[in-house]
Amino acid sequence: MSRSPGRKQENYKISRELFVLTYGALVAQLCKDYEKDEDVNACLDRMGYSIGIRLIDDFLARSAVKKCRSYSETADVIAQVAFKMYLGVTPSVSCSSATGNEFSLILDKNPLVDFVEELPAERASLCYCNLLCGVIRGALEMVHLAAEVSFLQDRLKGDAVTEIGITFLRKPEDRKHRR
Amino acid sequence: MSRSPGRKQENYKISRELFVLTYGALVAQLCKDYEKDEDVNACLDRMGYSIGIRLIDDFLARSAVKKCRSYSETADVIAQVAFKMYLGVTPSVSCSSATGNEFSLILDKNPLVDFVEELPAERASLCYCNLLCGVIRGALEMVHLAAEVSFLQDRLKGDAVTEIGITFLRKPEDRKHRR
Repeated sequence: MSRSPGRKQENYKISRELFVLTYGALVAQLCKDYEKDEDVNACLDRMGYSIGIRLIDDFLARSAVKKCRSYSETADVIAQVAFKMYLGVTPSVSCSSATGNEFSLILDKNPLVDFVEELPAERASLCYCNLLCGVIRGALEMVHLAAEVSFLQDRLKGDAVTEIGITFLRKPEDRKHRR
Repeated sequence: MSRSPGRKQENYKISRELFVLTYGALVAQLCKDYEKDEDVNACLDRMGYSIGIRLIDDFLARSAVKKCRSYSETADVIAQVAFKMYLGVTPSVSCSSATGNEFSLILDKNPLVDFVEELPAERASLCYCNLLCGVIRGALEMVHLAAEVSFLQDRLKGDAVTEIGITFLRKPEDRKHRR
């Protein structure tokens, strides 16, 4: 299942409902495959990572975004350009550390959980949308930005908002400069 | 994971690339789970069916399509309204039987296989997009139309086009009338 080299950059959109239901089928299948929520979460993250490292080419080609000069600018691009382009929503961004490498994307509305009301009791630790974290992590890695990405809050778990935390990991040379 | 009763009919679209890659992750997972292609195909069909029986509400609400008066009209609505709405493409339709209950949807371009060049040799019997057949079958069943839906040709398998066959199954009362 290799990538077609002659793939055209056609831009047509698809309906969110089909995506949301297909994503739900994927999560349900993984819940069948793995007993532990942690294993499902890890698998979704891995899958997302594989998607992210491929999606980044599409993103760079279509968005015409230039190289970001700061972590803050990168976080803004993820929220305002990438989320808008791929999911049709724009999370708000906040910087959550004095060191300037930790950011939160706050989603008032999570387009992936449209048909999901709440997680079943036996799946209380499931990060239903963990694929998104993997996608962000994979895409960032392809532009040489190592990051940890995880859900900090989740409306599916009763939190007021859905919050994705991105922690950019300092490069070795950054650390040297700071010493 | 029950459906939210208060779900709003918001219409925003998402990017096809994310959907295509997520669908690819789903198929890859099923290929890990099941050794036989037939089992993967059956699972995709079942998943599609579950999606179809839920998606039909969304379709009827958004399309405002009225009750179809013939199988031919139904096939046209699937191709021209449903495929357009959910996948952004419009297959051509041909009636392939004198009895008027067999139709083919011909896709010059299959939006689900965008990142797929060809099936691996060991997966030669895989119906990669079989989810679509299940979706159509499930949605039709919810409007009281029993049908068999399957891929008749597939560009991934070297055919010139991708062709989905829909055979509407006569209802018992139809059969009575014909006796």
